[in-house]
Amino acid sequence: MKTQIAIIGGGPSGLLLSQLLNRQGIETVILERASRNHVLSRIRAGILEWGAVKLLREAGVGERMDAEGIAHDGCVLSDNDLQVRIDFAGLTGARVMVYGQTEVTADLYRAQEDMETPIFHGVEDVVISDLDQAQSTVGFTHEGERKTITCSYVAGCDGFHGISRRTIPQEKRREFERVYPFGWLGVLSRTPPVHDELIYANSDRGFALASMRSKALSRYYVQVPLSDKAEDWSDAAFWDELKCRLPSDVSARLVTGSSIEKSIAPLRSFVSEPLRWGNLFLVGDAAHIVPPTGAKGLNLAASDVWYLFHALVERFASGTAAGIDAYSARALQRIWKAMRFSWQMTMLLHRFDEEDSFAAQMRKASLLHLSQSETARRELAENYIGLPY
Amino acid sequence: MKTQIAIIGGGPSGLLLSQLLNRQGIETVILERASRNHVLSRIRAGILEWGAVKLLREAGVGERMDAEGIAHDGCVLSDNDLQVRIDFAGLTGARVMVYGQTEVTADLYRAQEDMETPIFHGVEDVVISDLDQAQSTVGFTHEGERKTITCSYVAGCDGFHGISRRTIPQEKRREFERVYPFGWLGVLSRTPPVHDELIYANSDRGFALASMRSKALSRYYVQVPLSDKAEDWSDAAFWDELKCRLPSDVSARLVTGSSIEKSIAPLRSFVSEPLRWGNLFLVGDAAHIVPPTGAKGLNLAASDVWYLFHALVERFASGTAAGIDAYSARALQRIWKAMRFSWQMTMLLHRFDEEDSFAAQMRKASLLHLSQSETARRELAENYIGLPY
Repeated sequence: MKTQIAIIGGGPSGLLLSQLLNRQGIETVILERASRNHVLSRIRAGILEWGAVKLLREAGVGERMDAEGIAHDGCVLSDNDLQVRIDFAGLTGARVMVYGQTEVTADLYRAQEDMETPIFHGVEDVVISDLDQAQSTVGFTHEGERKTITCSYVAGCDGFHGISRRTIPQEKRREFERVYPFGWLGVLSRTPPVHDELIYANSDRGFALASMRSKALSRYYVQVPLSDKAEDWSDAAFWDELKCRLPSDVSARLVTGSSIEKSIAPLRSFVSEPLRWGNLFLVGDAAHIVPPTGAKGLNLAASDVWYLFHALVERFASGTAAGIDAYSARALQRIWKAMRFSWQMTMLLHRFDEEDSFAAQMRKASLLHLSQSETARRELAENYIGLPY
Repeated sequence: MKTQIAIIGGGPSGLLLSQLLNRQGIETVILERASRNHVLSRIRAGILEWGAVKLLREAGVGERMDAEGIAHDGCVLSDNDLQVRIDFAGLTGARVMVYGQTEVTADLYRAQEDMETPIFHGVEDVVISDLDQAQSTVGFTHEGERKTITCSYVAGCDGFHGISRRTIPQEKRREFERVYPFGWLGVLSRTPPVHDELIYANSDRGFALASMRSKALSRYYVQVPLSDKAEDWSDAAFWDELKCRLPSDVSARLVTGSSIEKSIAPLRSFVSEPLRWGNLFLVGDAAHIVPPTGAKGLNLAASDVWYLFHALVERFASGTAAGIDAYSARALQRIWKAMRFSWQMTMLLHRFDEEDSFAAQMRKASLLHLSQSETARRELAENYIGLPY
């Protein structure tokens, strides 16, 4: 098999890159380890920066997002009963879109099927080679049969556990990691959201987030020790804990119901440099992970896609390699700034078990300062709505 | 002896409060543990917020400061060779004044002597009592003789090690503390400053600060382990280390010379609440300590003085206790915000021995973000020049 770009991973990064390239007449083949149903049922992030919204429209998959997504002009940060609204629209002129990653992925699959892009599911034993040659190869097993793709470039969009990053020799990679000593217990419930914007709540008992997927579907989280198991948390215990952490007037309005999904996610910051190795380019979670505080994961994948898409189009249209040569450094600048923001939001809002008496006061003082300083709120808003590509 | 306000501590806080009160016709007596010469020879901070500049003028001690002080319109933060100028004037319309605490103290002593304010030096065994009575008493030993002052209020301006804070029963105080695992080795030298603004330098080897007291007197610092001793650092070793940490074009311009003073100061964040106990009011270092990063120590003492001065004037002029009742909460709001800023600057600029690979990247990303975001620079500038009183 021969193509221009072999894309490893059929999640939102790989699909979006493929979709954008196909629309410019560049051929792709997508290899995905999991089944189509598995990919489409994963519940992930729900907030799109406006840059990502525009990119999805540019990819021709904006229609349902624009119809069903909910634009948010702000969010709320709280510390016990102190509530600080961050007015994205007023402070920056921009907003974000609440539209689940699950929906983005579904829209992209539909679009890619219309394009008749070859997508192989249930792929195993991927081997990427000849990355220093004019044509590289990707070998893989599909339905018991060994196959090979010959291609100009390989896009590694296969997430943290994928093969792409590990194809770069370990001694040529620099990895940076912070593992946070807690997780997020998340509950999805078919109840109206308690507030029409997100509430990031700091409290003496730890962090909570009141979020949503739609006007009828709520997504709530509470910070829990990593030793907790989701099955040990009854719905009642979850709602009780959530109420203790949200501002009291918000808790009083909370509508509870049975959970549709309940799971614990660990929090991690991770970056692997460089993003390029010969003809291989890493995109999204394959190269970097952010904690969910600040909702940067999918958005950072989108900006990687944007940089790589433009570099590849330039490469094929004009023959110049300047864009692909600059991809790693360009994408990493934005990645590190989003890493910083996600880390800072995480430190600002979570309780650490081993912390000294001063740490909780620093979180309180940060919220107090935010409540009194428009510049501090603007700084947060500019990062939240997304730094420029 | 009888007075209206007994002031414990003859450093800049106590002297400034006394001077302001005296000018409003309110009587004070100052008790100081050390000798006048000792107080006047202490080398401390050198940066005044504009709010402190205006307060010193209001106290009638601005003349020499305005003649000899150097107004700074900005400062520089660096990370190895990346230099980010924070344009205070352009971003906030305000500036800071370089004028040493030693000089402020000298000016205040001269003014207080003109006022003929009673200042007792070498005072021992201070005992503050009857704080819940209409008139309180301060007992002390001076030149071998036991004396007593009867007063309406007591201002505790006697620093971290003073008796004032400890006069509040321990179970009625809440203390918050962070001790940083490093110190600042400071050198004073009669050499022209390497740059006409301060340079806060982050580097792979740790923090350095290029500062000054005047156009002919430089003050430089490098972060060192707490186990180091100043006498083990030769002048040559200090200059070598400093050059490694400053941006290379700055190091190339550095004029070195013999040190006039060389000492290591530990870094600590500390707050004790409340600031009021009956007729006793804590001011400045008696209640809170900041690390020197961001130059908030003396400035925070000045804002405490401002709040207490206005509250006491109101108390004596109109009889209302509203101002003194609000003093603790009002001053603490500003204290906590300055604590936050000093802590954040300290975390942003220092290398921690036990840190993971991610921590240094967060410092680099913060500097990168500052270099690219005017809002981030404005947020830093507003805090540096001083939040409103």
